Amino acid sequence: MRPLKKLISLDEAFKILGENTSVINQLEEITLFKLANRVAAEDVLADKNVPPFRRAAMDGYAVIASSTFGASDRKPIYLTCIEKVHAGEIPTKTIKRNECIEIATGAMCPDSADAVVPVEFTNKVDSKIEILKGFTPGDNISPEGVDIRKGETVIRKGDVFTPARIGVLAALNKTSAKVFRRPKVAIIPTGREIAPLGTELNEGQVYDINSYTLRTLIAQNGAIPILFDIVPDEFAALENAILQALSTDLIVIVGGSSVGERDINIDVLSKHGTILFHGIQVKPGKPTLCGKIKDKLIINLPGYPTSCLTNAYLLLLPFIKKMASLPRERQKTVNAKLSRKFVGQLGRHQILTVTVKNGIATPAFKESGAITSIAWADGYIIIPYNVDLIEKGEEIEVFLF
Amino acid sequence: MRPLKKLISLDEAFKILGENTSVINQLEEITLFKLANRVAAEDVLADKNVPPFRRAAMDGYAVIASSTFGASDRKPIYLTCIEKVHAGEIPTKTIKRNECIEIATGAMCPDSADAVVPVEFTNKVDSKIEILKGFTPGDNISPEGVDIRKGETVIRKGDVFTPARIGVLAALNKTSAKVFRRPKVAIIPTGREIAPLGTELNEGQVYDINSYTLRTLIAQNGAIPILFDIVPDEFAALENAILQALSTDLIVIVGGSSVGERDINIDVLSKHGTILFHGIQVKPGKPTLCGKIKDKLIINLPGYPTSCLTNAYLLLLPFIKKMASLPRERQKTVNAKLSRKFVGQLGRHQILTVTVKNGIATPAFKESGAITSIAWADGYIIIPYNVDLIEKGEEIEVFLF
Repeated sequence: MRPLKKLISLDEAFKILGENTSVINQLEEITLFKLANRVAAEDVLADKNVPPFRRAAMDGYAVIASSTFGASDRKPIYLTCIEKVHAGEIPTKTIKRNECIEIATGAMCPDSADAVVPVEFTNKVDSKIEILKGFTPGDNISPEGVDIRKGETVIRKGDVFTPARIGVLAALNKTSAKVFRRPKVAIIPTGREIAPLGTELNEGQVYDINSYTLRTLIAQNGAIPILFDIVPDEFAALENAILQALSTDLIVIVGGSSVGERDINIDVLSKHGTILFHGIQVKPGKPTLCGKIKDKLIINLPGYPTSCLTNAYLLLLPFIKKMASLPRERQKTVNAKLSRKFVGQLGRHQILTVTVKNGIATPAFKESGAITSIAWADGYIIIPYNVDLIEKGEEIEVFLF
Repeated sequence: MRPLKKLISLDEAFKILGENTSVINQLEEITLFKLANRVAAEDVLADKNVPPFRRAAMDGYAVIASSTFGASDRKPIYLTCIEKVHAGEIPTKTIKRNECIEIATGAMCPDSADAVVPVEFTNKVDSKIEILKGFTPGDNISPEGVDIRKGETVIRKGDVFTPARIGVLAALNKTSAKVFRRPKVAIIPTGREIAPLGTELNEGQVYDINSYTLRTLIAQNGAIPILFDIVPDEFAALENAILQALSTDLIVIVGGSSVGERDINIDVLSKHGTILFHGIQVKPGKPTLCGKIKDKLIINLPGYPTSCLTNAYLLLLPFIKKMASLPRERQKTVNAKLSRKFVGQLGRHQILTVTVKNGIATPAFKESGAITSIAWADGYIIIPYNVDLIEKGEEIEVFLF
């Protein structure tokens, strides 16, 4: 066994990971239906005006505004309606003073009109339209190009496609967009104690949890997980899997990062590449190992399910998002009061899962091998490496899952 | 034209929508790979203990704890190592006092041991293992079932599947789970002024934006959008589309909710069902119409793209989530100071899209027809119906998209 000696700080780990993460800049073209949450790989320019014509912004009557000046409830003005224009129709007549054209929201406004009187301010009185309020030129008319002007940049490289941004492409009759391809992340589970689902356990074995938790987390965060078969703790088998995984963008090895004699991950990394760090001042997750083979980053997470998943949230996600050009959103947090005293561990950041109810954070952590430590938690707190203890009732920030 | 007369309050609209929304309770069985964000339709009980055996929680040496009592840096105790157990292997020997077994994290602990001394507190000295600290019974050993105890409820009906909860199923060798099926939401775009993408615009037409924005929003929120072709404003065509859409769970008609003469949606709803409300004290979105045919809720959103999408965020999403049994999460918000004075509209809640930069909220709203009003915004603010104006510099809550 080779005990870990010098642990690096969490900040140092973030720095090293950041420096060794490459942003993916290959493009792919995607139809609007699959564009949600993808990242624009180029600016999109408008090749037309939207709307392409001047239109009514309200249901009502198109008028020459000056025909309505001075109109009020007490002193209405009466106009003659000479035409009706529904949305999708073209006005054919020219309005003169004291005339109007009935018009629907979104319909093309006659050139001769410079305002629309909303229907709420009108009455039909015999054959006339009664106008109850004065309007000024431009009122309730949307000019051509008010939404999008031809030549304008409507989507910028790096924009994440939201429903509205997809709507902007639709407005311009664009049926696809160029986006960055998503990073492929290899997941290589290791260890003879891990059994694939659907098989019988041998004595001393447990089922493979991490492939499923990591796969889900990676897919939820803009990347494509590539699952490898479970690799026994043998040099050649691991070497083979890693070399195969070099065709992906990021390699996550699970298990075997610890100091057991069979933990041959370090040996494989050292043979083919370099070790960037081994051991972080964080609990759980201390034995996390990181290396690089041919510009490909390799993160080796501990195999214990809670260690594995909390470290994936903490150390893996931000860099997967960086590779995918996704914004690093600040995680959702709530403030809560601690249900009991928490003892810190000087020298290591402690990550503790908690449930939050009525503003009280209660520990949900069982042990780093227990997947239920996370599954039944609402989030986690971090007790910094330099904090001795946090008293019951103290307020603390909870990072929500 | 039939002007809207009595508008209902936003709260009343929420109440009516809530009362008329049915939660979907049909089940479907889904494999782990597709389970993320789905909602458990039944409790899941553990049919085994996890871990299924007592295991070492650290790399180190399994011992009888009392053999280590009194050990310290200055006064180490020396034990004889009689075996090595890697993870996945079975211990074969029985430890006696002053003996130990080298053991890896996750490996089965010999019955004869009651503690594990972590490798950090040991040295190999000649043929002996030097122990530098005393440990008590139970230290660094995970008992059988510490994570999950057989018979225990591990997933509760209504739980949303997170990475960790999917991991819990994997831990139990479960390859699928029963979840509520997702609501199917019909989107029926209407209006002769709307042209499908990929066609040439006739004069007076604009491209179909709302089908794309709504489809994305609905799919992002746990439901299955079912897109209908654009329906012209004709009674028979709309009636036909609506009757066909009754096979879905919720019908969203887009456009034609206003008061133009061709707005025949009310007539179709009245013929086959009932009107629940028409007109809400909200801007944009006033003409939103809601009805019911045979227990099927029908929401008619205004056709102007920003009105349509903001009302979908406000009025549609919470009820789609309710149908899907998804928790109604509080929307992400930030506080920001207003960049300028905003004038309210007494009697109507005003929804205004804004960009937020360095804590300053600047209006992004152009007009309710402009999709860029949302696409270029970070979120929206709501100026309540009873607020006259909000001064420049005042702090306000921004609901983020």
